Amino acid sequence: MMKNKLLTLLFLVSSLFLKAQEEYDSVMLSRIFSDALTNTTGYQQLEYLCNNIGPRLGGSPQAAAAVEYMRQQMELIAPDSVYLQEIMVRNWKRGITEKASITSTISGITNLNICALGGSVGTNGKTLVANIIEVKNLDELKKLNKKKVAGKAVFISTLADPTWYNPYEAYRVVSQVRALGAIEAAKLDLVAVFMRSANPYTDDYPHTGIMRYDDNIKKIPAVALSTKDADLLSSIIKNDPKAKISLTLSCYEMAECKSHNVIGELRGSEFPNEVIVIGGHLDSWDLATGAHDDGAGCIQALEVLRIFKAIDYRPKRTIRVVMFMDEEMMQRGGRKYAENASKMSETHIAAIESDRGAFTPHGFSIDGNNKVIEKVNSWAPYFKKYGLYKFDKGYGGVDISFLKDIGTPLFGLMVDWHRYFLYHHAATDTFDKIFIRELQLGGASITGLVYFIDKYGL
Amino acid sequence: MMKNKLLTLLFLVSSLFLKAQEEYDSVMLSRIFSDALTNTTGYQQLEYLCNNIGPRLGGSPQAAAAVEYMRQQMELIAPDSVYLQEIMVRNWKRGITEKASITSTISGITNLNICALGGSVGTNGKTLVANIIEVKNLDELKKLNKKKVAGKAVFISTLADPTWYNPYEAYRVVSQVRALGAIEAAKLDLVAVFMRSANPYTDDYPHTGIMRYDDNIKKIPAVALSTKDADLLSSIIKNDPKAKISLTLSCYEMAECKSHNVIGELRGSEFPNEVIVIGGHLDSWDLATGAHDDGAGCIQALEVLRIFKAIDYRPKRTIRVVMFMDEEMMQRGGRKYAENASKMSETHIAAIESDRGAFTPHGFSIDGNNKVIEKVNSWAPYFKKYGLYKFDKGYGGVDISFLKDIGTPLFGLMVDWHRYFLYHHAATDTFDKIFIRELQLGGASITGLVYFIDKYGL
Repeated sequence: MMKNKLLTLLFLVSSLFLKAQEEYDSVMLSRIFSDALTNTTGYQQLEYLCNNIGPRLGGSPQAAAAVEYMRQQMELIAPDSVYLQEIMVRNWKRGITEKASITSTISGITNLNICALGGSVGTNGKTLVANIIEVKNLDELKKLNKKKVAGKAVFISTLADPTWYNPYEAYRVVSQVRALGAIEAAKLDLVAVFMRSANPYTDDYPHTGIMRYDDNIKKIPAVALSTKDADLLSSIIKNDPKAKISLTLSCYEMAECKSHNVIGELRGSEFPNEVIVIGGHLDSWDLATGAHDDGAGCIQALEVLRIFKAIDYRPKRTIRVVMFMDEEMMQRGGRKYAENASKMSETHIAAIESDRGAFTPHGFSIDGNNKVIEKVNSWAPYFKKYGLYKFDKGYGGVDISFLKDIGTPLFGLMVDWHRYFLYHHAATDTFDKIFIRELQLGGASITGLVYFIDKYGL
Repeated sequence: MMKNKLLTLLFLVSSLFLKAQEEYDSVMLSRIFSDALTNTTGYQQLEYLCNNIGPRLGGSPQAAAAVEYMRQQMELIAPDSVYLQEIMVRNWKRGITEKASITSTISGITNLNICALGGSVGTNGKTLVANIIEVKNLDELKKLNKKKVAGKAVFISTLADPTWYNPYEAYRVVSQVRALGAIEAAKLDLVAVFMRSANPYTDDYPHTGIMRYDDNIKKIPAVALSTKDADLLSSIIKNDPKAKISLTLSCYEMAECKSHNVIGELRGSEFPNEVIVIGGHLDSWDLATGAHDDGAGCIQALEVLRIFKAIDYRPKRTIRVVMFMDEEMMQRGGRKYAENASKMSETHIAAIESDRGAFTPHGFSIDGNNKVIEKVNSWAPYFKKYGLYKFDKGYGGVDISFLKDIGTPLFGLMVDWHRYFLYHHAATDTFDKIFIRELQLGGASITGLVYFIDKYGL
């Protein structure tokens, strides 16, 4: 009887304790969101990064400036340590000239909005002139008869299909064309590759992005057309199969040079050796100022440190913010970070990345085992009122992907994805496209997740 | 034994039938979305409505032009009938001048970004000059001592609190100030009301919206300040309680005049007497061109007719698109429509409204009984892949609300709500703020819901 009463009492006390815990966590999450939604520091930092520093392709002076700016911004937040991690990066330059036109006996000379793909060779100070044929995709390209097409240019018109609800699926198809087009075309002695931008919308902006060469195959120039001019080129070629394309590209590559990841951390009070890493990438393509891709992700990562300081939360585990360099070209920053973590035998209990633009967040895609996914879903009720409802298995992110080798569960911030590819890798990815509340909500969402992982482990 | 076999067979056949039905509905939904996401008609109509016609406040020549434009656009889609429903509307005009400044012995003269609230009286060709006091909300206003404040102006500084995740909740609080401020202030012999715009963001744009008078109480001018100038006014009054406000407003009201709801319908093939109504409101505030509020909603409603025609879907029930007039002032269009429906004893099985801006849709709020909500939720699995996951009890919409009296279940399109109040009722609500894919997704989502309601009833 006595024992039963004790058990009942114990049950009551633990229920009360659990209830109090739940309320406490709810209040903490509310403090995180309230702080984020009334603070403009991150928005101002992003404005400075975009409008005062500029495009930040790995190897550029602006990338170096961005490293120093972010190092200083981290110092201002005064975490326990701020440091740089040195890496070597490629140093590709677009140069001054990129021009293309098509000359047809029917429609005359038509200028085309193009940009070199990242890493492309130039045209050696000359203008390349050639007939051009259109193929719908890489498969059609591979099936061409080398004897018939050698010496011509090719236009691969694969569409980023807007009827796919998930624009990332449409993007993936076209990004394969971008990656492999020049290799496959060179195998057939084609002299240049034109692709339709990986943009599901119709506009005038060409979208760049990394392309690849095979060292054993000739390197030929590769460019993207704006979606409007891709349609135009299609119709000109159709009307006049003998139309000739002209292409002048002055891009070139310099020797690799030093750059850095920027790292700031709050040391854990109980488990300092358990690291939660939060990252974005500091480099951007050179056509714009990388506001959504991925200045916003860096700022949202930094928000975790700022908010924890602001609400006076001392984490039990080590919270480490990493602004990775060189995501767009070779992912040297991500690779180096993981390599070092492995060498130092650091325990990374979670890695979180924001690299899908500063749009309304909906949850996290989780690249981890079922236990991890279940645990995170047990916290989902707290997040529902903040519009975060997706905590499903999925891809984490490019920079943190290298941590998978040491068994780290990876998390990618999921956001409203419909606007991203309008700006992605194009001249339109500028600060004026950032809506402050969406930026703030992303930082708050990540900070909330870090709070739960820090408190309850994974 | 024979009977068992027959039953098994029957079970198998009906399972196959159900499976086939499911697949069919899935394909239909996919056709609806594919058509919407590749068609630019609606986007172009909205551009014309905003950029070629302009602001469309009830009673304005532009409202009349909008009625005629939309009537013609409906005709082009060639539904079974297109007609106008006559109503009388108020005819309030902003006039040319709206100017306010505050003069302080400390800071001199400071101009303030203001706009008259909709329906406000002007200052009779004079400039009103008065001391001004700040109150935080309507309760503080009501507690003022009439003897001490008579003859002064009042600034009600209630904030649209950005820390509330749901911006509609923050808006509701401030819209009460807008509605009742002038009545409560006049009771105390205050001479003018200034309010902080119902905008949770910090910027330079004042936001208008309807305000009310009580016919038995003196009518005093009422204006909204931009959020930046609301902060500024606060600090000036604090530093110099004797600072004087100057206000010149030339707004006035003309006699009521005729206007119209624009209606187009597809007659049901099986149950023509069961009406599904889909609406937006065609009028807009006069400060901008009502792109999000609510040109987009009208276009999305019209998309239902266009898409059904495009995919050759002949509805079983009557599909009626209504572009309501005068939502912003007196809701005469919504009232008239419901009154007529009731008089004609029409059966309205559902009413759907889009009036929350052309942002990424997430579902529908349903103002109906549990049976309706359950039925709609049984269709939810089809909608999940299109990002529509909320089918919860909630508010339908202003214009369709009057149909509640005849028992119609009401549906409001739920969208990403974080950007709406940046544009709502301000000079910023223009066509350039419309992102085509979000507009298209809204039209497709409504059409999808109408498809299921039409096919299965409610």
